[in-house]
Amino acid sequence: MTLEEKLAQIVGFWEKNEGEAVAPLQGEFEAERGLDDAIRDGLGHLTRVYGTRPVDAAERARWLWDKQRWFRDQTRLGIPALVHEECLTGLSAWGAATFPTPLAWGAAFDAELVTRMGALIGESMRMLGIHQGLAPVLDVIRDPRWGRVDECISEDPYLVGTLGTSYVRGLQSAGVHATLKHFVGYSASQSGRNFGPVHAGPRELADVLLVPFEMGVLDGGVRSVMSAYNEIDGVPVAGNDEILTTLLRDRWGFDGTVVADYFGVAFLQLLHHTAADLGQAAGQALAAGVDIELPTGDAYLQPLAAAVRAGAVDEALVDRAVLRALAQKEDLGLLDATFEDEPPTEVDLDSPAHREVAALLAERSLVLLTNDGTLPLAADARVAVIGPNADRAAALFGCYSFLNHVLAHHPDVVVGIETPTVLEALRREHGDGVTYARGCAVDDDDRSGFDEAVAAASAADVAVLVVGDHAALFGRGTVGEGCDRDDLELPGVQRELVEAVLATGTPVVLVMLTGRPYAVDWALGRCAAAVQAFFPGEEGGNAIAGVLTGRVNPSGRLPITLPRSAGAQPYSYLHPALGGDGDVTNLSTVPTLPFGHGLSYTSFTRTDLRVAPGASTCGGLTVTVTVTNTGSRTGADVVQVYGKDVVASVTRPVAQLLGYHRIELAPGQSADVELAVPAARLAFTDRSGRRVVEPGELEVWVGASCAQRDVETSVVLTGDTYPVTLDDPRWTGVTVV
Amino acid sequence: MTLEEKLAQIVGFWEKNEGEAVAPLQGEFEAERGLDDAIRDGLGHLTRVYGTRPVDAAERARWLWDKQRWFRDQTRLGIPALVHEECLTGLSAWGAATFPTPLAWGAAFDAELVTRMGALIGESMRMLGIHQGLAPVLDVIRDPRWGRVDECISEDPYLVGTLGTSYVRGLQSAGVHATLKHFVGYSASQSGRNFGPVHAGPRELADVLLVPFEMGVLDGGVRSVMSAYNEIDGVPVAGNDEILTTLLRDRWGFDGTVVADYFGVAFLQLLHHTAADLGQAAGQALAAGVDIELPTGDAYLQPLAAAVRAGAVDEALVDRAVLRALAQKEDLGLLDATFEDEPPTEVDLDSPAHREVAALLAERSLVLLTNDGTLPLAADARVAVIGPNADRAAALFGCYSFLNHVLAHHPDVVVGIETPTVLEALRREHGDGVTYARGCAVDDDDRSGFDEAVAAASAADVAVLVVGDHAALFGRGTVGEGCDRDDLELPGVQRELVEAVLATGTPVVLVMLTGRPYAVDWALGRCAAAVQAFFPGEEGGNAIAGVLTGRVNPSGRLPITLPRSAGAQPYSYLHPALGGDGDVTNLSTVPTLPFGHGLSYTSFTRTDLRVAPGASTCGGLTVTVTVTNTGSRTGADVVQVYGKDVVASVTRPVAQLLGYHRIELAPGQSADVELAVPAARLAFTDRSGRRVVEPGELEVWVGASCAQRDVETSVVLTGDTYPVTLDDPRWTGVTVV
Repeated sequence: MTLEEKLAQIVGFWEKNEGEAVAPLQGEFEAERGLDDAIRDGLGHLTRVYGTRPVDAAERARWLWDKQRWFRDQTRLGIPALVHEECLTGLSAWGAATFPTPLAWGAAFDAELVTRMGALIGESMRMLGIHQGLAPVLDVIRDPRWGRVDECISEDPYLVGTLGTSYVRGLQSAGVHATLKHFVGYSASQSGRNFGPVHAGPRELADVLLVPFEMGVLDGGVRSVMSAYNEIDGVPVAGNDEILTTLLRDRWGFDGTVVADYFGVAFLQLLHHTAADLGQAAGQALAAGVDIELPTGDAYLQPLAAAVRAGAVDEALVDRAVLRALAQKEDLGLLDATFEDEPPTEVDLDSPAHREVAALLAERSLVLLTNDGTLPLAADARVAVIGPNADRAAALFGCYSFLNHVLAHHPDVVVGIETPTVLEALRREHGDGVTYARGCAVDDDDRSGFDEAVAAASAADVAVLVVGDHAALFGRGTVGEGCDRDDLELPGVQRELVEAVLATGTPVVLVMLTGRPYAVDWALGRCAAAVQAFFPGEEGGNAIAGVLTGRVNPSGRLPITLPRSAGAQPYSYLHPALGGDGDVTNLSTVPTLPFGHGLSYTSFTRTDLRVAPGASTCGGLTVTVTVTNTGSRTGADVVQVYGKDVVASVTRPVAQLLGYHRIELAPGQSADVELAVPAARLAFTDRSGRRVVEPGELEVWVGASCAQRDVETSVVLTGDTYPVTLDDPRWTGVTVV
Repeated sequence: MTLEEKLAQIVGFWEKNEGEAVAPLQGEFEAERGLDDAIRDGLGHLTRVYGTRPVDAAERARWLWDKQRWFRDQTRLGIPALVHEECLTGLSAWGAATFPTPLAWGAAFDAELVTRMGALIGESMRMLGIHQGLAPVLDVIRDPRWGRVDECISEDPYLVGTLGTSYVRGLQSAGVHATLKHFVGYSASQSGRNFGPVHAGPRELADVLLVPFEMGVLDGGVRSVMSAYNEIDGVPVAGNDEILTTLLRDRWGFDGTVVADYFGVAFLQLLHHTAADLGQAAGQALAAGVDIELPTGDAYLQPLAAAVRAGAVDEALVDRAVLRALAQKEDLGLLDATFEDEPPTEVDLDSPAHREVAALLAERSLVLLTNDGTLPLAADARVAVIGPNADRAAALFGCYSFLNHVLAHHPDVVVGIETPTVLEALRREHGDGVTYARGCAVDDDDRSGFDEAVAAASAADVAVLVVGDHAALFGRGTVGEGCDRDDLELPGVQRELVEAVLATGTPVVLVMLTGRPYAVDWALGRCAAAVQAFFPGEEGGNAIAGVLTGRVNPSGRLPITLPRSAGAQPYSYLHPALGGDGDVTNLSTVPTLPFGHGLSYTSFTRTDLRVAPGASTCGGLTVTVTVTNTGSRTGADVVQVYGKDVVASVTRPVAQLLGYHRIELAPGQSADVELAVPAARLAFTDRSGRRVVEPGELEVWVGASCAQRDVETSVVLTGDTYPVTLDDPRWTGVTVV
């Protein structure tokens, strides 16, 4: 292979779509050349073939198959391109199912359902000739001010790891490679600002931020990892060989590809200023272990070629990346692919199977925060539906959905899938006694609709206020990539709208359709009920209507703390004792609602917590708890087992999720849920840098949230300090008796 | 020595004063035994002999001399106790001068004056038989929400290091040992909460947080260091041998004593939970390198004795600490002291020399933030003085002043020094046309005084609004130890008071007497002028009156960013490019006012910036700038030289203070200020962990703040990458031509 042929295999190409700049600084790069010009030497990745244009998938597939035949026939080596696409909440393509956002997966605490979703997404992608999906996001949430919180699963690394791995398994079961991102630390940026510097030491990195990635690599067998934009303690990850090579490959044994986050190689020069030019940036990233530059070859084409020819970069590093890129193509069957088959002509990307999973996941993700009995709505209640997110389909979708991505540029496009709004769904389910007033927009200061909203509420038995976010990119939304916040109030004048409606005296059911949790302590005590919906996807309107009417018994649990205020951030439930309340500071940390909280229309008891004999440092422990539905209707509880290491060689969290299990129970029904907590769940990085389990007392409890101990016990882990290995299981095994 | 005699030498004793608990959790420890009972085996430290009771110093000295003779005569070894005292803003004793708080030292940018102040404090202490002062605080400010910000000097480590070292030199010139605290990281706690976990990696530690301590040890020759309460990345500092021994002693060569912050050893058990009991806590701290437990021997007496006898702690560790403790006593002459001399009978702790330095430092620390010409006040202006801090002496003092410490328990005590309030001083200077209305308290919600304030303002030509903080401990104040905040609004209803007075249309001069900067962007554009005073001490009222009338030409500069909002924290001007504004986030970081800002009644130009030939990695660079007083009255400028490393192997701040110099100039006068910036000022920790200077381009500028480039240039540092050594100078040399 010539140097140019090699370099062509380690870059992508992103065909411009009607001149749109779809990312900030994109205009800085990539001459306005066409694909045909770009790919005479072959091509590593084709970037977002489907995801940035509202075009029929079958039509686009024909274009793709033609291109792949062209690679086969018209380039010297005849190697097709690897096609990658966004797929965070479903395949990013016109007409494709849009599932709930990852924060909603977290709320559903349902690994099996996430696997099913991943498989459906993967099957759609495979059919359309897409080989790699740029998901899941395994960033552990550290600050709700950050705009990308809705793309993340939880503030608990174990929940992120189990659901993220489930997604990987699902997607890859269809033969499509998943991509863990953003490796690593991106979510821990200073004051929640996108791309901000990360202040974290090696222990926080190992025990919190890296955990889900380790699970995705070792348990999920993921085939690709994306390097993150951020720096950690001064070193940009895209140029950090200790993370991308020593840890990821040498220690974890990862043998797939590392792809750059879009423009991330060039950002070493442009934003981090650790490289003087694109050639240096390319050399740093390549040496660190970034194999593929995405979306295009801004640094890995001409600048890297020049650096290699000048002797500044060792061509062996290029070869290393090329071999990995080609191994991935071989793995995917691309080296032998002929594309003699015809592309699919009948494409249903939103089949009943998709809709079913989308509905189940949406329903299970809805968190009933408070309820004085107003919910479910009485069948004959006159309901005023009010608020900017009540009748807005886009309110159901996160910023990395095809819909929100594309609607930003094509506001009038027909979205191609059914997306009933909350209002539409509630009208269908509840019947005619539903009135509507928008009240205000998500994020401006126009209060002219307040009067109509107040009138509607006054004339109704219940006001359902549907407020929240608009997800979009780079300042165009209230949440999403580049839409960070330095307050955590509901955007715009929505709080004022809620206050105005509350003042009518009509009971208010607050429904929050958001991408991050907001500081709504002021509202929860005054509203009759409150429902938290993290962008629930195409079936989200129906799911919310189902909870409001009682067709669906809510069972979601908060995967993230409902915060106290922006000024109290960062905060995580996983804090040591001195990260919580105490005598040494006047400030309380008690959040609006804690991690794990969520109500039901039935009630549960968790009793009789037992720890099996023989709990040890190397074997972990097995706990059994009895869960009983003590209410009058069927419902699902999420059994949450927490632990606290009483004394350790380093500070440990006051509560840590050791395992969880979603279980549906009929009225009066009981079950014994046995969770085998392996040593790896109890391990942490000691002072010497080893991940160990230390002997001694462990408090264990089960409760309705991290802050509630319904039943608790104490166990002594016997044995010596045990250094866990990569072979130790990381998942909590669950048996239901 | 018996084990008990050894242990007695490495603990303090804090005699209870009328049963007061002066620190949280103090009640957890120390049986209610008296001093005579406690010290039969001798005693390491006597804790706060003067600082917690309103008693005449000479009388207390007689008590102390008696006690020391008792140690000499009645203990087997005859070793007197080392007496330590708080002295952050002056000796903590009744009738002693109270100087401005450290944040005001930072605003004055005047190292020589801080040295003079330190010497005066040391002389008072020496006279009273005090051997060690628990100051200065060298914590680099990282978050203004933290309550102890007023005890710190600046958010810039170089400014902290130079002024802190100046204080050490001054204090130790009188034969009193200074104590660097809190070593290290305490100011970087999560969300600005006292004792909160610190998320920082080794590079941030080395390049920011450790810098002033390194200067205090190597340049200041400090004799004692206090271990901090906090953990860093999971490891409590009080149990961290890498910090307290490997770094401090083995690398820096420190051979003095390490003392625990009060109760900090026991907190390893009680708050950090890294020790199961006090014996383990003692063992951890002792092994890490904490030589002396303060304030009393909660862990180092019986618990440690038991641990040593049980073989859990090596007695050699006890011996190591005892030898250091005795070496310090020898150093102080205590091993030969007879106390045959009589204690002082005439004690003037607030002499004219004290008052002069207190006045100069207060005057130089006042920062004129904005001014439309209303200041100085016209001689005939009718002035309404309004606000809770206008006529309140305690408003002039930080929480670690004797006054605020003692007033908390003895509210009616005569403070023993003259402390004119702003109102009193202005009445004296401005004459009879001054009216007064308090308006409201610092921190309650009583608005009943608003009407009177509005009436006073309406009847005046100018309203001087004196607002701000009340400093106290543990929730009893609006700032101070344990008085953290999750918003940065003026406390209580003070903002409403300012708004009410603004609404009268009378021009408002806002004077903020605070311990932290507040987010007052809303006020600055609407007030005619604004003055920031960080607790300016006993002469603060006079100094403020002097600035208001024009007797004093303001010359302070912000040593800390005036923040944007609480939700935008943490923020430091020392951020990499991605910690600032850019295309990747919608949020601006532009603060209310930047680090280094401050106006004058005259004006200055900074021109003709020259870099001497030969700038190199090992030699640093020499810059010269011409400063001219272009106004019509004498005034002082603070020349601020900033630099930015354009490309480096790790991310570097967009601006870094390389040197500063305060210079007074007559109208029309010019001076060339030459600053020799040594290599150590340009160094940072590279990827291999070495502190180095890298070759390449450096932008250099001089301006009125970190955000303003009045004159700039660019220089190329030649030579190889240079690893700085401990012998490299750390101070910027200044020559004025």
